[in-house]
Amino acid sequence: IINAEKSEFNEDQAACGKLCIRRCEFGAEEEWLTLCPEEFLTGHYWALFDGHGGPAAAILAANTLHSCLRRQLEAVVEGLVATQPPMHLNGRCICSSDPQFVEEKGIRAEDLVIGALESAFQECDEVIGRELEASGQVGGCTALVAVSLQGKLYVANAGDSRAILVRRDEIRPLSFEFTPETERQRIQQLAFVYPELLAGEFTRLEFPRRLKGDDLGQKVLFRDHHMSGWSYKRVEKSDLKYPLIHGQGRQARLLGTLAVSRGLGDHQLRVLDTNIQLKPFLLSVPQVTVLDVGQLELQEDDVVVMATDGLWDVLSNEQVAWLVRSFLPGNQEDPHRFLKLAQMLIHSTQGKEDSPTEEGQVSYDDVSVFVIPLHSQGQESSSH
Amino acid sequence: IINAEKSEFNEDQAACGKLCIRRCEFGAEEEWLTLCPEEFLTGHYWALFDGHGGPAAAILAANTLHSCLRRQLEAVVEGLVATQPPMHLNGRCICSSDPQFVEEKGIRAEDLVIGALESAFQECDEVIGRELEASGQVGGCTALVAVSLQGKLYVANAGDSRAILVRRDEIRPLSFEFTPETERQRIQQLAFVYPELLAGEFTRLEFPRRLKGDDLGQKVLFRDHHMSGWSYKRVEKSDLKYPLIHGQGRQARLLGTLAVSRGLGDHQLRVLDTNIQLKPFLLSVPQVTVLDVGQLELQEDDVVVMATDGLWDVLSNEQVAWLVRSFLPGNQEDPHRFLKLAQMLIHSTQGKEDSPTEEGQVSYDDVSVFVIPLHSQGQESSSH
Repeated sequence: IINAEKSEFNEDQAACGKLCIRRCEFGAEEEWLTLCPEEFLTGHYWALFDGHGGPAAAILAANTLHSCLRRQLEAVVEGLVATQPPMHLNGRCICSSDPQFVEEKGIRAEDLVIGALESAFQECDEVIGRELEASGQVGGCTALVAVSLQGKLYVANAGDSRAILVRRDEIRPLSFEFTPETERQRIQQLAFVYPELLAGEFTRLEFPRRLKGDDLGQKVLFRDHHMSGWSYKRVEKSDLKYPLIHGQGRQARLLGTLAVSRGLGDHQLRVLDTNIQLKPFLLSVPQVTVLDVGQLELQEDDVVVMATDGLWDVLSNEQVAWLVRSFLPGNQEDPHRFLKLAQMLIHSTQGKEDSPTEEGQVSYDDVSVFVIPLHSQGQESSSH
Repeated sequence: IINAEKSEFNEDQAACGKLCIRRCEFGAEEEWLTLCPEEFLTGHYWALFDGHGGPAAAILAANTLHSCLRRQLEAVVEGLVATQPPMHLNGRCICSSDPQFVEEKGIRAEDLVIGALESAFQECDEVIGRELEASGQVGGCTALVAVSLQGKLYVANAGDSRAILVRRDEIRPLSFEFTPETERQRIQQLAFVYPELLAGEFTRLEFPRRLKGDDLGQKVLFRDHHMSGWSYKRVEKSDLKYPLIHGQGRQARLLGTLAVSRGLGDHQLRVLDTNIQLKPFLLSVPQVTVLDVGQLELQEDDVVVMATDGLWDVLSNEQVAWLVRSFLPGNQEDPHRFLKLAQMLIHSTQGKEDSPTEEGQVSYDDVSVFVIPLHSQGQESSSH
């Protein structure tokens, strides 16, 4: 369900579909690849993109990322179907102990899928950069992707969307949010290494609030890039500059501009009225978690809920799980129950009287939700 | 217990004692501090230092780090004893909403202890650098520190020593090892940002094994700094260089030289027969974990076991916990039981017939162990 409450142009975009991976075959010369036209491995793909600064990047990502991922997976498909990925892609050992080295490093087929997701996000980011520049458009987006392949569910996240597993007795986060707050140390570290990125306009240091002239010479609480704890420092004039990361929680901003620290696009984004670029501080690479669906004793109502931050700003993981567990068991005969659950989750953010949120909290952001039933992923053959 | 099995000069060093923190008082002018001679806060301090390249750095650290920590804690003691650390160290609000900002950032007194530990490690590293240079000595060491203060146990770790909590029903790691393997992405990232650090002699990329001429032109498994998964790349000539991080497990080495990626010292350390420095890749800042001892329902036999890698190379956390649980309940009347337990743990690494390790594995490394009874920490007054 993609919801368009907030903006004239909905900034949330989504994509889902079958992921058909063809097999690469080596010809007489190793350089020469033949792609078999028929599919070889089949997976499923779901993706949510939460745009900012316009819908352009989110639309491009929704149209592009799955193709990047398919290409990346096709490039390593020989390794995916091997018991263990071979040291050499053509499978021939050059050194007789090659399998042993791969074994010692603990490299599994799933590491190739993780690597393919990481590369696909980066490739897609480059495509978006070129397309936006060519068309004179701007903007960026977060990306949350789930891929079901060979009995495993891969969740790749760059931004502040979230995926959780909800089972009868378990709530398991499958992603982690990347914001200026959660990535503070990485961002401060970069400003420490490349101070020119701040153009003398911002301070790298974190303080509990923005400092004022009255604070000069006082000893105040602060944190630098290498610190997870806090200490005190005597305030100098340069500490009065605007902070690299400012604000708390949903109000936290990178360079006063952006609420997320990973995502796609934003190649041209600059701090208002300056030449200071945001892109060097942003990562397009996702964090990938792997759920071994085959190892779970799946039940009919086990689902993964993926949603943009509009949902999670209003509902906690526990509230979402409660709604899932309240809704699904009574509707097992309804073939559209997962769709209806997604609709109901969106409805719960709109501040209606029957809302489960405290004081009927309302989300004014776009909200998009996928409810993915795991039972069919685990049970059905790969051709579905 | 400090064991000296391996080296002529034992490279393990240890320190423990009472940590007496005096109160800073502001005089008429805010700049002017009076240290009250009597102690104000009392804690306990335990530290293990595992030296390499000679014992010099470990000895300096054992003689210095507690003083650095005391100074750092004294510098923030007003914040430590407040319900919440004040925005300004003199406690005066400049802005009426100062306490609210500190509250929103979630800054607690324990964050000042964490900050003090982080700063103390860095200060100690600088002292060691100066002292080694002045005396023409070399070497480095890991550092694992536990501090009991105000009902909490802080464990700060830089290196590959380890501390675990062992209770009747629980084994909880209190530290995390920092090695070229666990810090691969940070180290590769640095080499990506500053390629000159490798002087054209090393490759930043990770491969399952060192590549050879035969691999040229083949597609082989690799990982770069931004990847947690693996992918394939076509081997170029520069990939045949010696890898920045090489080997697995206990054999893993940074620049072919060092088995740890955090610690103190090593300011002069260079790759053999080159001018390539190790120090830029090493961090002196520790990771700090906090155990809220006051919140545990402590039992007589709850202990923290701190030991250098010589113990953990041979015994798993579970084996150590089994030894603790086998030994302590039968010896509750013995006032030296914790000392004897530490001796017994060391004995277990020496490959004797009654050893609990599989096939009587033997540690040829120095082994040092602290067994810290938590019951007395929680129960006794701070003057013990």
